[in-house]
Amino acid sequence: MITIYSPDHAQHNPSQEFLDGRVSIYFEMPRRAEIIREALETAGIGLILPPREFGTAPLLALHGEDYLNYLETAYERWVASGGSPEGVMPSTMPPRGLRHIHRSDDPRSAAGYYCFDLSAPIVAGTYAAARSSANVALTGAALLLEGESVAYALCRPPGHHAGRDYCGGYCFLNNAAIAAHYLATHGTPQAANDGDDAPVWAMRPPVVALLDIDLHHGNGSQELFYERSDVLFVSIHADPAYEYPYYLGGVGETGAGAGAGYNLNLPLAGNVDNERFLATLDTALEQIRAYAPRYLVVSAGFDTFVDDPLGDFSRASVHFGLTTDAYATIGARIAALGLPTLIVQEGGYATAALGHNAVSLLHGFASQEPNL
Amino acid sequence: MITIYSPDHAQHNPSQEFLDGRVSIYFEMPRRAEIIREALETAGIGLILPPREFGTAPLLALHGEDYLNYLETAYERWVASGGSPEGVMPSTMPPRGLRHIHRSDDPRSAAGYYCFDLSAPIVAGTYAAARSSANVALTGAALLLEGESVAYALCRPPGHHAGRDYCGGYCFLNNAAIAAHYLATHGTPQAANDGDDAPVWAMRPPVVALLDIDLHHGNGSQELFYERSDVLFVSIHADPAYEYPYYLGGVGETGAGAGAGYNLNLPLAGNVDNERFLATLDTALEQIRAYAPRYLVVSAGFDTFVDDPLGDFSRASVHFGLTTDAYATIGARIAALGLPTLIVQEGGYATAALGHNAVSLLHGFASQEPNL
Repeated sequence: MITIYSPDHAQHNPSQEFLDGRVSIYFEMPRRAEIIREALETAGIGLILPPREFGTAPLLALHGEDYLNYLETAYERWVASGGSPEGVMPSTMPPRGLRHIHRSDDPRSAAGYYCFDLSAPIVAGTYAAARSSANVALTGAALLLEGESVAYALCRPPGHHAGRDYCGGYCFLNNAAIAAHYLATHGTPQAANDGDDAPVWAMRPPVVALLDIDLHHGNGSQELFYERSDVLFVSIHADPAYEYPYYLGGVGETGAGAGAGYNLNLPLAGNVDNERFLATLDTALEQIRAYAPRYLVVSAGFDTFVDDPLGDFSRASVHFGLTTDAYATIGARIAALGLPTLIVQEGGYATAALGHNAVSLLHGFASQEPNL
Repeated sequence: MITIYSPDHAQHNPSQEFLDGRVSIYFEMPRRAEIIREALETAGIGLILPPREFGTAPLLALHGEDYLNYLETAYERWVASGGSPEGVMPSTMPPRGLRHIHRSDDPRSAAGYYCFDLSAPIVAGTYAAARSSANVALTGAALLLEGESVAYALCRPPGHHAGRDYCGGYCFLNNAAIAAHYLATHGTPQAANDGDDAPVWAMRPPVVALLDIDLHHGNGSQELFYERSDVLFVSIHADPAYEYPYYLGGVGETGAGAGAGYNLNLPLAGNVDNERFLATLDTALEQIRAYAPRYLVVSAGFDTFVDDPLGDFSRASVHFGLTTDAYATIGARIAALGLPTLIVQEGGYATAALGHNAVSLLHGFASQEPNL
């Protein structure tokens, strides 16, 4: 299996985030990507290739130009105006339900306009790292178009919380969504099915299914494709009533307009062990199969792991307790769909186990995949 | 002139806020109210009365019941679930433009749902202090209804950034708005003017004008009255393109529905000295006079003062430089409207000068007011 990786990710290295009323270490640290890369090398999982350069066009297909400009220039302007050199972090955001929202170039105003939380500080190297991370995912998508049956995009920073023009939750550019859009617009279109009795989706099958198995709901991905029928979004995640990103990810969100019926959320509360997660995965895969897409993109997070520091919610009403072995089963069941598949790295913060968990997922996938 | 004051404000005493990417002292400190009270006593400005208890009915007229319940219980639940004992502070907020926003009792979810910034930590005594502060304003309103021509509500915490169901900017309950609504609904209604050629407002004069002269736009007050014609909102403030609360407060926001024409923003950028502020005040007062309200509520902030730590924006494109003398002129010109007037304390963080500035405003008002 081909992995795409770039050392450029390390340019994004914030020192802090702000959680639960306290300054905290930045959990999404550069070491994460290096641990995974080292584990892949040790396991001999296959070639590790650098990304190609795709320019800004595939990014601008989903993100606003003003937002890209902001990401590129925010840090310098923030520091010049007295903001902390530890990174751009908003203090104020537009209150819910405002009729008018002014956008301004002022560094403090922009910080809250283009970001929805305190876990996405912009530092000097953030834009370069985010661009590189998107190129990693796009390279994986290009490999599928060129005939590869599977590729692993070792993206960092992750992407699935980033929306059209906002960052948050360690995410700046939505790598998986950018790759899904690239596949949807560069891949072979589906033939329409005009059968009278066919359900809506059978009349216009999505080109791409985007399956999100990170602990956290991929709010950015959902928003980006919410009115589109060419990308089906399916997400398994901790119930947002108790878990980040809180305000999105419910079962009632099923798409709108042309995208009605093309968004499926499977939130889980309570205790989620291997068996319960796998049963939910089977539901997700069954749905994906029914929609008959041509490509699969997987937003793969390992924060569902039993020892993940962000997944430990003994205090709350949801706890995910997956073990390393479970990821092999997850990989195998996803591979059994038989679709050209791009696996995109998202979260996972239990650094000691992160490499083993990634290798487990990829080995599991390869075990079911005849062409590797 | 009667002042209303309660020592209960001191129960709201957060240790920190988060600004510009750093933990900061909490500028809106209990000492602010004590400095003003001491200055009023020294100046012999008049009686200082405790507030009466109005219960929750006048609060629920503008704020949601769920929000009041939240303010009352948030701290205990936050600390019990592992949040910092320094106070409830959001880390994540609903991104702009979400189609769906889930509300949940989860302490972290609620922290971002009910708050839009990092400058309104909820501590154990916040709700008691905010209730007391609202009672201070309501007592002032009641005194006007009973025939007093002017009263000064020494409110703390301040209120004008608080909306129907969110806190922010040191504000939890919108004291001035609550008092304005109380006057609008308990005061003598205006006679309608049916003249064919009369402008809209002359056909239905507002009962109350709410004049906001704090440095920061009163976004909460604007939102609460945006569709109402019985309360005219007029605000002079630093241009939100460069200053908190950033996302609201432009000249284009003039009211909607029944409230169309009843919202007037006078944002100022660049250098704002006494002369420029007073000229803008004259514009505001002229408008208020034209609308012929029966009562005036003033959201009075002293963060327009030359040495205010939050008004010092030498780094940016707006700087207010009012001196202590200017507040006397402001008070005198407001008094010249000849309306029963409730002056409600909002911001002001230059503690050394705060007492002098408040006394200056009240003395200036009294100098033009025959019944004192």
